[in-house]
Amino acid sequence: MRTEHQIEIRVAYHEVDSMGRLYHGHYFTYFEKARLELLRASGEIYREMEESGVYVVVTHCECRFLAAARYDELLTVRVRVKAVRGARIEHEYEVWNQELLVARGYATLAMVGRDGKVRRLPDQWRPAVRS
Amino acid sequence: MRTEHQIEIRVAYHEVDSMGRLYHGHYFTYFEKARLELLRASGEIYREMEESGVYVVVTHCECRFLAAARYDELLTVRVRVKAVRGARIEHEYEVWNQELLVARGYATLAMVGRDGKVRRLPDQWRPAVRS
Amino acid sequence: MRTEHQIEIRVAYHEVDSMGRLYHGHYFTYFEKARLELLRASGEIYREMEESGVYVVVTHCECRFLAAARYDELLTVRVRVKAVRGARIEHEYEVWNQELLVARGYATLAMVGRDGKVRRLPDQWRPAVRS
Amino acid sequence: MRTEHQIEIRVAYHEVDSMGRLYHGHYFTYFEKARLELLRASGEIYREMEESGVYVVVTHCECRFLAAARYDELLTVRVRVKAVRGARIEHEYEVWNQELLVARGYATLAMVGRDGKVRRLPDQWRPAVRS
Repeated sequence: MRTEHQIEIRVAYHEVDSMGRLYHGHYFTYFEKARLELLRASGEIYREMEESGVYVVVTHCECRFLAAARYDELLTVRVRVKAVRGARIEHEYEVWNQELLVARGYATLAMVGRDGKVRRLPDQWRPAVRS
Repeated sequence: MRTEHQIEIRVAYHEVDSMGRLYHGHYFTYFEKARLELLRASGEIYREMEESGVYVVVTHCECRFLAAARYDELLTVRVRVKAVRGARIEHEYEVWNQELLVARGYATLAMVGRDGKVRRLPDQWRPAVRS
Repeated sequence: MRTEHQIEIRVAYHEVDSMGRLYHGHYFTYFEKARLELLRASGEIYREMEESGVYVVVTHCECRFLAAARYDELLTVRVRVKAVRGARIEHEYEVWNQELLVARGYATLAMVGRDGKVRRLPDQWRPAVRS
Repeated sequence: MRTEHQIEIRVAYHEVDSMGRLYHGHYFTYFEKARLELLRASGEIYREMEESGVYVVVTHCECRFLAAARYDELLTVRVRVKAVRGARIEHEYEVWNQELLVARGYATLAMVGRDGKVRRLPDQWRPAVRS
């Protein structure tokens, strides 16, 4: 299981607001793309997990916006597993525009079954991360 | 200047994910609607502010998700001015589905000019809030 | 079964593009809200239909944009059942900003089961509409 | 000026509805990404056009949905300049999931200035297309 990954995302036209800035709510979809690609890079496909009845829900998320990102800019989104605590995983995110740190975020995820009840993390999801 | 307001929002079909739950990123648009309606209830229209060259940017936002909200549910979104510190305003949000607290969030806003530089808050935006 | 309905929608901040205009893709979510409210006004709740295994899919949609709609404007969205042909329903939409016709659209829907196969329309969905 | 282009887009989690299908309204953002990349492949950057006061508005768009696309599928979106008529450009789109044609769409664009008035197409935008 990998604990870090990074992807590139180009800011889409419909994602900017009337100031021409990437709308703040969309950073959370960028974070999600990054963690799903981290999963894929580890050999897991989230779609297959859902098909087998395992869902991931976000229980907390947060973002600090340090600089504006604008339409057509090519951003780098980095994700890192920060901690695994019981049934929860914490991820940390950074969004870079070349050398400029645009945003830093966090998300806490829990795994649930189709019934919405929390499930224990599978062992392969427990990377060697101290918390 | 009012410091509290609440609105009702019905969860739209395109806002739910494949689990049928309100997608976590959309809570931030709900928060935004609530604070813009708080502004309107205070006699200010954000569109007019932007036309006069004053923009509000989100510098930090956060949400804790306590229960799922589903398509077609009618939610109540409450916003409260929590603190005014220098050029920044902090809002607190709660999302209720009748008696059930679905989510609690926070956002910090700064006012900027067309040049992106921070501007002092107008006096009428400084409600009698202790911080 | 009613064949016409209208709702009001205020253009949200995150729905406008960098020109300050309601982004063209969002008109289709406005249309959807209108037809779901038409359904509700007829005593049907789409969520309950989905729970019983009946889904509506859009097989064609179209919109002509006649004028810009801007952030904070209060629009009226009208929906009308235009035709019922076999397993398909055609709706016509108009978006008005007071006396100004902003957009006119069309959508064709089909009902499918959980297996994705087309299902015959229930009789109560067959209003007295000539096509 | 190129008249055809194709891009790949992976269906994002937040883009699917509660049936697990790519929400119909999002196809129009896929079309937009394709035509902006066609522009880029021709040496034009839309952001630079907007900065110089030239905006493109969609005056009509349409899509026929032939098959469902699902979360995580890698789609190919093809765009082709179909006609140039006066101040308008018509594009045709196809969305493929490998050998399966998922959707076919059309959009008509007009160029406008900051005042919203239609502007003549620059000569380099007039490819050798019969209409």
